[in-house]
Amino acid sequence: MSTLTKQLEWRYATKRMNGQTIPQEKIDNILEAIRLAPSSYGLTPYSILVIKDPELRKKIQPTAYMQPQIVEGSHLLVFAALDNVTEKNVDDYMSLVSTTRGVPVSALADFKKMIWGGASTRSAADNFTWAAKQVYIALGAGIVAAALEEVDSTPMEGFDPAKLDEVLGLKAKGLKSVVMLALGYRDIANDASASYKKVRRSTKDLFIQM
Amino acid sequence: MSTLTKQLEWRYATKRMNGQTIPQEKIDNILEAIRLAPSSYGLTPYSILVIKDPELRKKIQPTAYMQPQIVEGSHLLVFAALDNVTEKNVDDYMSLVSTTRGVPVSALADFKKMIWGGASTRSAADNFTWAAKQVYIALGAGIVAAALEEVDSTPMEGFDPAKLDEVLGLKAKGLKSVVMLALGYRDIANDASASYKKVRRSTKDLFIQM
Repeated sequence: MSTLTKQLEWRYATKRMNGQTIPQEKIDNILEAIRLAPSSYGLTPYSILVIKDPELRKKIQPTAYMQPQIVEGSHLLVFAALDNVTEKNVDDYMSLVSTTRGVPVSALADFKKMIWGGASTRSAADNFTWAAKQVYIALGAGIVAAALEEVDSTPMEGFDPAKLDEVLGLKAKGLKSVVMLALGYRDIANDASASYKKVRRSTKDLFIQM
Repeated sequence: MSTLTKQLEWRYATKRMNGQTIPQEKIDNILEAIRLAPSSYGLTPYSILVIKDPELRKKIQPTAYMQPQIVEGSHLLVFAALDNVTEKNVDDYMSLVSTTRGVPVSALADFKKMIWGGASTRSAADNFTWAAKQVYIALGAGIVAAALEEVDSTPMEGFDPAKLDEVLGLKAKGLKSVVMLALGYRDIANDASASYKKVRRSTKDLFIQM
C-alpha cells in the first residue's frame, strides 16, 4: 500500500476536533499544495482565507449550522471564487505570466484572447460556476496534503454563502464563498464517526475500464 | 521542502507525451487516491472512465481539439458526473453504507432524508453542477497522486462534452462528461512548455490571513 493510500484511508470527515494547534510547518505545506494546484489556464480564479482568529471563527459558526469543527479546529480555510471573471483578472494574470517567465505581455496576446474570449461571452453566474469548479481542485489538493501531514480535515458545503460572505466582507473583494475546509486534530473521545468504517464505492463499481 | 511540494513543483500540464506505458502499480495507486477522495455526503455522484484502448482514444481526439496527449499518453481518464441525482442513486448509496458498516437501512432514514431532501428540490441542471464540483475534488486527488508517482498528468476541459458523451455512450449510463485527465510521460524534446517556469500566484497574493 502506498503512503498516500495509507493516509487517505486514515483520514475521514472529522466531526469533532480537540482544539490542538497545527504546527506552522504543516500549515505551510498544506497551503503550498493548494497554491501549486493547477487551475484552468492557470488563472486561479479564487482566493483562500486562512482563518486562525478564534473570535472570527465564532462569528462564522452560526452561518454554518453551528458545526463544531469551525471553532474546535486549528485553522479554517474558506475557499472563495471570483464572482465574475473580468478583463482585469485576465490582465493581472498576463502580467504575472510575463513577470514569471520574462516574456513581454504583447507576446501573450493569443493566450489572453483564449481566456478572455471565453470568459467575456459567459454570464457572471456561469463564470462563477466555472471558477467554483477550479476551487475544488485546490480543495482536493489541500485534503490530500493534510492527510499526508497527518492533519485532520473536514470539507464543508453546509453553510449559508450569503451570510458567510457578509461576515468576511467578500463582496467588496469581488469574491463569493464556495466551500470551507476545517483543519485540526480529531477528538476521538467525542467523535463517534472516528471509528466508522470508511464507505467508498468499489474499484469495480466506480471505474469503467475501456 | 516536503516531498509533496517537490513533486507538485515537478509536475506541469504536459502538452506532449511520449507514448510510454505507465506500470499498472502506479495506475492502481492513482486510481485508489481518486477512489478514496471525499465527496459531499460521501455520495460519489460520478464515475470515471479509464481508457487505455488506443483506437477509442483516437475516436475521442476530434472531440477535444485534437490535443495530442489523448493519444500520446498511456491512459486517459474521463470524469463523468450524474446528469441528475435520483432517489435510486441515494438508495444505492444507503445500501452501500448499510453493507459497509453493518447497520440496517432503516437506521439511515435521517441520512437519506438529508441527501434526498436537498437533491429532490434542485433541478437536474443544478444537481449536475453540484455533482460536477465533487468530480473536481477527485480530479485534484488524482493530479496529486500522479505527481507523487512521477507520472505526468494533464487536466483538460477543452472538449465538446455532448460529442464526447456520444462517443462514450454516456447518456445511457445517466452520465455527462465533466473533465479529462491524460496520464503518461512528458516528451521533453517536443514539448516546449516542459522548460517553462511554473506560474503561480504568490502565497501573499493567493491567501488572505485572518
